[in-house]
Amino acid sequence: MKTIELKSPYLIFVGDTVESSYVKTGFGLVEWRRDLCKGQLSLSGSGVDVGLPTMTLKQAAESGVKSMIIGTAAVGGSIPESWLDTLVEAASRGIDIVAGVHTRLMDIPRLREAAEQSGSRLIDVRVPPTDLPVGTGKKRTGKRVLMVGTDCAVGKKYTALALEKDMKAAGMNADFRASGQTGIMIAGKGIPIDAVVSDFVSGAAEVLSPDNDPDHWDVIEGQGGIFHPGYSSVSMGLLVGSQPDAFIVCLEAGRTHILGWNDFELPPIAQVIDRTVEIGKQTNPAIRCVGISVNTSSLNGAERQSYLDELSAKLGLPCVDPLKDGTQKIIDRLNKEFN
Amino acid sequence: MKTIELKSPYLIFVGDTVESSYVKTGFGLVEWRRDLCKGQLSLSGSGVDVGLPTMTLKQAAESGVKSMIIGTAAVGGSIPESWLDTLVEAASRGIDIVAGVHTRLMDIPRLREAAEQSGSRLIDVRVPPTDLPVGTGKKRTGKRVLMVGTDCAVGKKYTALALEKDMKAAGMNADFRASGQTGIMIAGKGIPIDAVVSDFVSGAAEVLSPDNDPDHWDVIEGQGGIFHPGYSSVSMGLLVGSQPDAFIVCLEAGRTHILGWNDFELPPIAQVIDRTVEIGKQTNPAIRCVGISVNTSSLNGAERQSYLDELSAKLGLPCVDPLKDGTQKIIDRLNKEFN
Repeated sequence: MKTIELKSPYLIFVGDTVESSYVKTGFGLVEWRRDLCKGQLSLSGSGVDVGLPTMTLKQAAESGVKSMIIGTAAVGGSIPESWLDTLVEAASRGIDIVAGVHTRLMDIPRLREAAEQSGSRLIDVRVPPTDLPVGTGKKRTGKRVLMVGTDCAVGKKYTALALEKDMKAAGMNADFRASGQTGIMIAGKGIPIDAVVSDFVSGAAEVLSPDNDPDHWDVIEGQGGIFHPGYSSVSMGLLVGSQPDAFIVCLEAGRTHILGWNDFELPPIAQVIDRTVEIGKQTNPAIRCVGISVNTSSLNGAERQSYLDELSAKLGLPCVDPLKDGTQKIIDRLNKEFN
Repeated sequence: MKTIELKSPYLIFVGDTVESSYVKTGFGLVEWRRDLCKGQLSLSGSGVDVGLPTMTLKQAAESGVKSMIIGTAAVGGSIPESWLDTLVEAASRGIDIVAGVHTRLMDIPRLREAAEQSGSRLIDVRVPPTDLPVGTGKKRTGKRVLMVGTDCAVGKKYTALALEKDMKAAGMNADFRASGQTGIMIAGKGIPIDAVVSDFVSGAAEVLSPDNDPDHWDVIEGQGGIFHPGYSSVSMGLLVGSQPDAFIVCLEAGRTHILGWNDFELPPIAQVIDRTVEIGKQTNPAIRCVGISVNTSSLNGAERQSYLDELSAKLGLPCVDPLKDGTQKIIDRLNKEFN
């Protein structure tokens, strides 16, 4: 087994957090995988409510919960002392603990002991599998669509999840493939590509979207940006290893510079498309762009529509805000191009 | 300290190897850093001779040797039982042990104890530093020339070392920067770029060639190939983080396909140049190619010269086999372009 795999159903642990923005993973799980979530557990009893039934660990274990997912971030990114009793009790009850925090779960002695005794697993979704291969570049069966960003934090994961949902609703054979920690928690499996040693990045991407049915689409979460001064090699390895048939450029309307790298202007969208095609051709000569996904939250209603219309006319591609418009226009394009 | 750093002078350990081709690192050290090498030690007494005075560990310690470098590979890439007594004795005498094998030196209990007691270091040159930053893309002072390969194993390290030597001989201010394990042993410092987690590859490349004097050249060892199905993301991170002013394309005459990836034809040289310029512009808009380094060992004398002449005429660049012609023509081009 070369990807991380979680067991469902889940209990979402929201700790003692009262700030909703810290509980992104918990809300993401409820939004995208409500059917896998049995309940929530907050320490204070009055913490953030992600909209699931409140459960004790005893109730969770009795109702068949297999994993407790830490759905919140603590200040500093580690595991606070105040969470420990609960995590240890969950592990003792045979429930897997799943986290994406800086502290390694295995490095907490009480927790490791509890897990060893019960046989439950401690899963750090930031830690990639150890037996990843070097990329072969060999053509795989099935079809792949990769999210490509002009930058980090532009909605690549959201777009992929929305696309998977809409494709499935349309009766298509599709699966979201997670390449980052939050995506892995939502998908229940995946590989944290940016944590993979660089020799194995494209190999990891190959493992992430293996051979599949001819009509099957892997909807692959993107990472970084191909023009990013810090992360472009992550994006390149993911692109080369994914050998996508199609890609979607994701961006945020109004952003002018690379987030946190203020000396770097964002590349024009057409340039992102061209560069992605050039590099993607190494492993899939037929690669093409099938749409643009825009986070338009900074625009008002009238601006929003004219922004998308102008972009669409300019690039000759469907342009949508998946949060507001859904992804049907992009799916239509995919079907037109690949049927 | 963010790069590996070795202490000289060295004792070269050649083990019980009788096959010269296994002792590449040992011969490389003698060829490029003879002044740092005090002696050699072979287990059988009749092993491969790298051309240094034979020494016992006692003699080595007394003559001031600071590091014993494992200059040979064993079958399987690990450390054979038969080497252990010698490694332990060296560590006990306070001599650092330096290796680039699969077995981690720290994982051998006897060796770890000996090193802890004497204060000597166990240095695995395959293990990158732990505190590498994410790449910033910020312009650094000094000048940089990067070796770029059409493929792996085409002479990138050799070219960089030859160039450093010839630049120094010409009175220029230059330093070889090692990005791979053998290079690190030869240079005495560096970062094994391909072993760095992908999020930090361009940051590692930034650390490898830090700010320097305006007239100083970093001569940077390349890795992989920008069109390589397995390793292109390593090459990209190194390119973006190195922000080279100039680069040299390295290739082997007669090679038609990527070594070990027989379905992939080698890219044309002009395409390697174009792609390197396109990507390199992200962090250095003035990047340019200054020459071609060809391993011509497969060609006879007459073929060799006409091959280089034709290539030079076609590309408008100096083309040399550094092993046979030296690198002066490329240095002339560098000086013309950057003075």
